[in-house]
Amino acid sequence: MVGQIVVVGANAAGVNAAITARRTNRDADVVLITEEEEAAYSRCGLPYVLAGKIPQFGDLITFSPNYFRSMRIELQTKTSVQAIDLHEKTVNMIHEDRRAESMPYDSVVLATGATPSILPIKGCEKEGVSSLRTLNDGLRIQEALVQAEKAVVIGANWNGLQMAYALAQKGKKTTLIESSSQILAETLDSSMANVAQKRVEENGVKVSLGAVADEIVGNGRAKGVRVGGKVVGADIILMSGGIRPRSELAVELGCDVGLADAVKVDCQMQTSMQGVFAAGDCVETQNLVTGMPTLASLGTVAVKQGRVAGVNAAGGYSVFPGALCSSVSRVFDFEIGSTGLTEDQAKRAGLPTVSAILNAKTKPEYFPGAKDICVKIVVERDSGRIIGGQVIGGEEVTQRVNMMSLAIQCQATVWELSKVDTCYAPPVSEMWESTTLTADLANLLLRRS
Amino acid sequence: MVGQIVVVGANAAGVNAAITARRTNRDADVVLITEEEEAAYSRCGLPYVLAGKIPQFGDLITFSPNYFRSMRIELQTKTSVQAIDLHEKTVNMIHEDRRAESMPYDSVVLATGATPSILPIKGCEKEGVSSLRTLNDGLRIQEALVQAEKAVVIGANWNGLQMAYALAQKGKKTTLIESSSQILAETLDSSMANVAQKRVEENGVKVSLGAVADEIVGNGRAKGVRVGGKVVGADIILMSGGIRPRSELAVELGCDVGLADAVKVDCQMQTSMQGVFAAGDCVETQNLVTGMPTLASLGTVAVKQGRVAGVNAAGGYSVFPGALCSSVSRVFDFEIGSTGLTEDQAKRAGLPTVSAILNAKTKPEYFPGAKDICVKIVVERDSGRIIGGQVIGGEEVTQRVNMMSLAIQCQATVWELSKVDTCYAPPVSEMWESTTLTADLANLLLRRS
Repeated sequence: MVGQIVVVGANAAGVNAAITARRTNRDADVVLITEEEEAAYSRCGLPYVLAGKIPQFGDLITFSPNYFRSMRIELQTKTSVQAIDLHEKTVNMIHEDRRAESMPYDSVVLATGATPSILPIKGCEKEGVSSLRTLNDGLRIQEALVQAEKAVVIGANWNGLQMAYALAQKGKKTTLIESSSQILAETLDSSMANVAQKRVEENGVKVSLGAVADEIVGNGRAKGVRVGGKVVGADIILMSGGIRPRSELAVELGCDVGLADAVKVDCQMQTSMQGVFAAGDCVETQNLVTGMPTLASLGTVAVKQGRVAGVNAAGGYSVFPGALCSSVSRVFDFEIGSTGLTEDQAKRAGLPTVSAILNAKTKPEYFPGAKDICVKIVVERDSGRIIGGQVIGGEEVTQRVNMMSLAIQCQATVWELSKVDTCYAPPVSEMWESTTLTADLANLLLRRS
Repeated sequence: MVGQIVVVGANAAGVNAAITARRTNRDADVVLITEEEEAAYSRCGLPYVLAGKIPQFGDLITFSPNYFRSMRIELQTKTSVQAIDLHEKTVNMIHEDRRAESMPYDSVVLATGATPSILPIKGCEKEGVSSLRTLNDGLRIQEALVQAEKAVVIGANWNGLQMAYALAQKGKKTTLIESSSQILAETLDSSMANVAQKRVEENGVKVSLGAVADEIVGNGRAKGVRVGGKVVGADIILMSGGIRPRSELAVELGCDVGLADAVKVDCQMQTSMQGVFAAGDCVETQNLVTGMPTLASLGTVAVKQGRVAGVNAAGGYSVFPGALCSSVSRVFDFEIGSTGLTEDQAKRAGLPTVSAILNAKTKPEYFPGAKDICVKIVVERDSGRIIGGQVIGGEEVTQRVNMMSLAIQCQATVWELSKVDTCYAPPVSEMWESTTLTADLANLLLRRS
């Protein structure tokens, strides 16, 4: 019998855990705790507010305090959880007014998220250097942007790319610095990354690859970034060095941790400690193709894991099967999406592959407004199964990625994908769907390999 | 050894058969015969030229005569095939200049298509009454539209709906008459059809259901349609009574025919006569869910069948696994799509079902421009397998239909679809993808059933 469920952290994973716990168990007390001022805002929306595509940061708050009241979820904002006592079964917290509270629990969900990794760059503490993770980060950057003319973004992952987009949209002279040899290295193979990079550059962002930031220069206030002897001038510098799971509470509890100290969980999202569940950016996730641990760091994975954790924490039964790290973004006038393994990742996992890339249009050439689309499919050579897909195009990328994600999950062969009975009408698609055509090509290459 | 391949009919199926035959066999002679003036135009694009979305009918010609020359395909336009002689192995044709020719063949592909069914309505021969099937039909209707103020379309199938859309776009007062109790009865269940109908009506088209056209009134020139005692005035009347397979040549050859005299073929698209293949609207297609024969009458199916017929006619090996009749259209500001069986069709096939409908948005509510989307999933009750999907929404309907088509083909259960690792970014999708949410709901209903 679960009487009290405490959820620590109130973003994608935490909010979904709390709501699902309530739905699973109408009688339990559900408490949702966050150290932030606002619960349940869309982190993925932050760059789009900066870019001016969403009117204001407040719009990102998707659940109001009223909603939580109506769901009988006790929301505690500006409250920091200090420790969890496994023997007493209490969550020990400190409220905004410094009042300490020890709250009993029957089950607890850790949805403590992640913090931006601090890049080891000299001078990164200077004024004008920031990262974009929270609503408050967004507000601070927006304010700083008013005076800024030139900007540098360090790190060309999703977050970095979206920030560069936002800055360019606001008319800032923007440079995106990446230490490796391609952008979006965890998402795209280099050939696809080149396609994306070209479009980013066409939209006015300067991209520097293989560029290691040595120092933030300026007296107190950042004035630029020194890269290999040269200084790239900037009034604002945004750091995007990835994120680090926040697992301190779990570590203190003695929970097993794995990659980058992320919390290890079973398929019910339970940690190695009975009654302690975890979900979202703070946990290690199993990759569905390789079976190996990975850091998903995605809102979609967080909400699904949150739901599963919420059901199980409330005494129900649900499983999270693993992730393919499907992701998508739209910057400027195009979209980039990816699912499963890149060819590089497959190689590192020891899987021999065959892959195909196809350039096509989103509509027949004769239909005004047809846009370019480029599809890559990665196939496991021995089985013919699809294990990865990447798409870059002017429109309708998301659902193509979703279709390939389903194909991977169903262990469909590339032949099966090539035979899908796709639909067509001139204003919305090509007669020959680009994903099935790419599968057809990959199938041909597979038979020749 | 295949030396001469003759393809009869040069639209979706025929052109693809000819091209694929050439690719499969570099040495054979490939001859492509059509009685029309133009080969290889996009039939599906015709309504969009009328609507003014595509500049002119000529734009729809997707392969030029030069293309066929470069592929070494001998194109014979304005040429009518009179008979095929199985013993002599000749195709007997008459050219535009009335010259008769007897051409030897090793294999022949019948891609003779279909003709509009003539609705048995008194007065349907009057001037101002037309159907839209060919490029010439389109040109004639476009000319007639200049003078017309009011229009009636009879038959609310895909073709009828698209014509009503085109007429309304051109500012004509348009009425869409349908004898059954819903629009798109072969594509949507009534609940979804009601959603679509409402949006059609919001865009100014009057829809009359259960309305049987008794007579076209007017002296010589059509002035309106009499429906149950009342006359709906119209300067132009477009008939959309479905299509009838053109299988006369095959019937004379002694080929087996089935539904509506459509040509029966095996999975290699070979008719009951050795060396005679058929593809496209003239053949009977196997439904992948029920295994029963159906008339697909879709460009997507025709091109795929054409390819398979072309490979096999040229001495290669390829199979067409069957169809789900996936289809989509965009009219006004929304899209309608469907795949597999509707609930009604499943009932008629004796399959007990559970289904779920979900109303959602294409983007987060806070992202400007989020559009409504409505998803229906039909599930076979005993197996939990997805057997049908229907989507109506403001954008990105096509690829959602394709994903459900893949799910049906892979025999995925609704639970599997509910667990797909979908991707998300605020400008392009919701955090919880509407198709997987609908699957989640259907799964819940299934467990309760």
